[in-house]
Amino acid sequence: VKNTTIAPSTRPHVIIVGAGFAGLRVARGLRGAPVDVTVIDKHNYHTFIPLLYQVATAGLEPEAIAHPVRRIVAAPNVRFRLASVTGVDLQQRRVTTDAGDFAYDYLVLAAGSVTNFFGLESVAEQATTLRELDDAETVRDRVLSSFEAAAAEKSPARRRALMTTVLVGGGPTGVELAGALAELRRHVLPRDFPELDVSQARILLLEASDRLLEAMPQRMQRKAFEKLRSMGVEVQLGARVTDADERGVTLSDGERIDAAAIVWVAGLRASPLAHALSDAPLGAAGRVIVSRSLNVPDHPEVFVIGDMAHAGGRDNPPHPMVAPVAIQQGGLVAESILRQTQGKKPRAFHYKDPGTMVTIGRSSAVARVYGVPFTGFVAWLLWLTVHIVWLIGFRNRALVLVNWAWNYFTYERGVRLIRRRR
Amino acid sequence: VKNTTIAPSTRPHVIIVGAGFAGLRVARGLRGAPVDVTVIDKHNYHTFIPLLYQVATAGLEPEAIAHPVRRIVAAPNVRFRLASVTGVDLQQRRVTTDAGDFAYDYLVLAAGSVTNFFGLESVAEQATTLRELDDAETVRDRVLSSFEAAAAEKSPARRRALMTTVLVGGGPTGVELAGALAELRRHVLPRDFPELDVSQARILLLEASDRLLEAMPQRMQRKAFEKLRSMGVEVQLGARVTDADERGVTLSDGERIDAAAIVWVAGLRASPLAHALSDAPLGAAGRVIVSRSLNVPDHPEVFVIGDMAHAGGRDNPPHPMVAPVAIQQGGLVAESILRQTQGKKPRAFHYKDPGTMVTIGRSSAVARVYGVPFTGFVAWLLWLTVHIVWLIGFRNRALVLVNWAWNYFTYERGVRLIRRRR
Repeated sequence: VKNTTIAPSTRPHVIIVGAGFAGLRVARGLRGAPVDVTVIDKHNYHTFIPLLYQVATAGLEPEAIAHPVRRIVAAPNVRFRLASVTGVDLQQRRVTTDAGDFAYDYLVLAAGSVTNFFGLESVAEQATTLRELDDAETVRDRVLSSFEAAAAEKSPARRRALMTTVLVGGGPTGVELAGALAELRRHVLPRDFPELDVSQARILLLEASDRLLEAMPQRMQRKAFEKLRSMGVEVQLGARVTDADERGVTLSDGERIDAAAIVWVAGLRASPLAHALSDAPLGAAGRVIVSRSLNVPDHPEVFVIGDMAHAGGRDNPPHPMVAPVAIQQGGLVAESILRQTQGKKPRAFHYKDPGTMVTIGRSSAVARVYGVPFTGFVAWLLWLTVHIVWLIGFRNRALVLVNWAWNYFTYERGVRLIRRRR
Repeated sequence: VKNTTIAPSTRPHVIIVGAGFAGLRVARGLRGAPVDVTVIDKHNYHTFIPLLYQVATAGLEPEAIAHPVRRIVAAPNVRFRLASVTGVDLQQRRVTTDAGDFAYDYLVLAAGSVTNFFGLESVAEQATTLRELDDAETVRDRVLSSFEAAAAEKSPARRRALMTTVLVGGGPTGVELAGALAELRRHVLPRDFPELDVSQARILLLEASDRLLEAMPQRMQRKAFEKLRSMGVEVQLGARVTDADERGVTLSDGERIDAAAIVWVAGLRASPLAHALSDAPLGAAGRVIVSRSLNVPDHPEVFVIGDMAHAGGRDNPPHPMVAPVAIQQGGLVAESILRQTQGKKPRAFHYKDPGTMVTIGRSSAVARVYGVPFTGFVAWLLWLTVHIVWLIGFRNRALVLVNWAWNYFTYERGVRLIRRRR
């Protein structure tokens, strides 16, 4: 009979908290290395966050963008534990979880980020976010349920409110979600709901600043704005949501928007686990300020990476909370741990920005790849290719491709199921 | 602006309750006919129940066997309403739902069946069933969560209990589920859980009678029994579960089986909606006793079909609760309604039994097709073909085929996600 506890070993024990892009990259980098690795996550699957908006709009099933962690990390020296981490004791070198404590020699914190409501409690209560698989299903259920309710509603005003979706936040997620919703409204919902005048349905994209896609060149920002407008999305810049209730949202200028579904994609902050590091200073959005080698001050054995980390010290501008940063940091940390076990110094992190890309509906995208701008169909093909390559696992790639081909040629969205009725 | 209420019409209004095999067959049969049709279901999707066990064992994603009802019934004279039916007023010709009342000229009740626990309350509380998409996900989550818990468990006895699944009921669902679980245990779980001795995991199939697959010829029953035994399933005949708690089940002879997951597939009874028909007599398993033309006595405008119906009067043996009965009855009722609108008499129902087929793991099945028995690989190919053909929608067929090919060639089960942790 095998032993279920982690075998006593003279090899250093590396604990990785989080099975996102950052944590998995570290685990892969340490596969077969002379260390014992334990990956801890609160889910037994990795979520491919960049495609959550397609789950939210009935284009993909949740399972197509989730992959079992045990399958990904499979290696003789890598173990997985399903647990929520509740604390870190930097002095005793232990992490505490809801499934017991674990001692470490090296610790990698890669627990990602959570939605930032900036203290707007009523909004946090009413709005759905888009960070987890469940969130995406909730958005889909809510939009579809509201249309079902509209089909039974006699008051025209209430009916229109039931067909209204408010998206808050004009970053990549908000823009992609708005585009996908506009396609759902144009191609799918009119056929599904012949009893409704779906052209009355509203999709609002509210952005507090004066532009969409902050990180993009100005020309791309305008392209995205015009494309969304042409698809019938009501883009409102300088619109700041201050309050929400069951029937809709209120803006800072007092404007009231009645809506059945509110999706908040206006901000992120580091996982609350950052606060568990009592010694570590926190920067903007609660991110842990780490050294150039991504360590907590005075703890060369503790690394913080990905969305949780503000790299290179307080005076350095933080990296965006995106997958390429997480993956590059994960690669460096795997290398650094191996170097440290050999008595060598860790190296400093330098981000190579591959750029960003955002799809806006069918055959259309804006992209900036290593500084070169792309728009339209070419950008869209680039986007497709990069996302298929990024996806983990042949099966998930095949499923996503089948879905995309199906969606493209039929103008359908097959996953319009309401799994949980309100 | 279109009217959202059902347009006043001189054409007869047919209400179909239930979007299972029976209800959808009626709706399809009335597509384009001179009647207005409203399909009511508590889900906005049709569930392909015969493949639920593959969802429960991580072989298929739930969405692959669910199809949006609005897509299926799409026709100018057919509407859908998402609602739970709470009552039927046969005198006033109205159905009451949680989304308002609906008047009908013809009513088709096809609300299916629910799990029958035969009054065993403790079992009903502890066990999972397998009738809905959510049930299948719950079984999957529970089996996988228990293995995760086993990986963290130090007591060998408790660890073994966490790796034990008890299936109650040796009908087709129990047999197929047992075979699929045995394959998961053999091919997938040992790789996922190198820290566990998965050969210690137990799968028990408990059947109260003295044989499996009651409806099959004796030779097939023996085949199924031997095949399951060879796969390491502990088949216990004459084993009657009388009690259950958090840690396992107790049998009528006092035997105690410690198990983390209990799945009850030992019986069905008609939807409780049968009780709403105050005038109608109920037969075994609470099924409504209907005439040879599938009508409630003295109500030629009310039909009951599928699992809810006991056809042909009390003295006729009831049809099995299977899809072919439901589909054939649905076809007849669509025809009968059209005949009645033309002043003609409805016809009597005669069941043409196409037989049954049950897979037992990879490349193996037992089948009886129009009286002809098949076993082994040929039966398995038959089973594959029939189920792909039965599935609704090209997209679902494509997804299921991709999954099956993937599962077959890689010995993998890709959907081993725990969506809801206990």
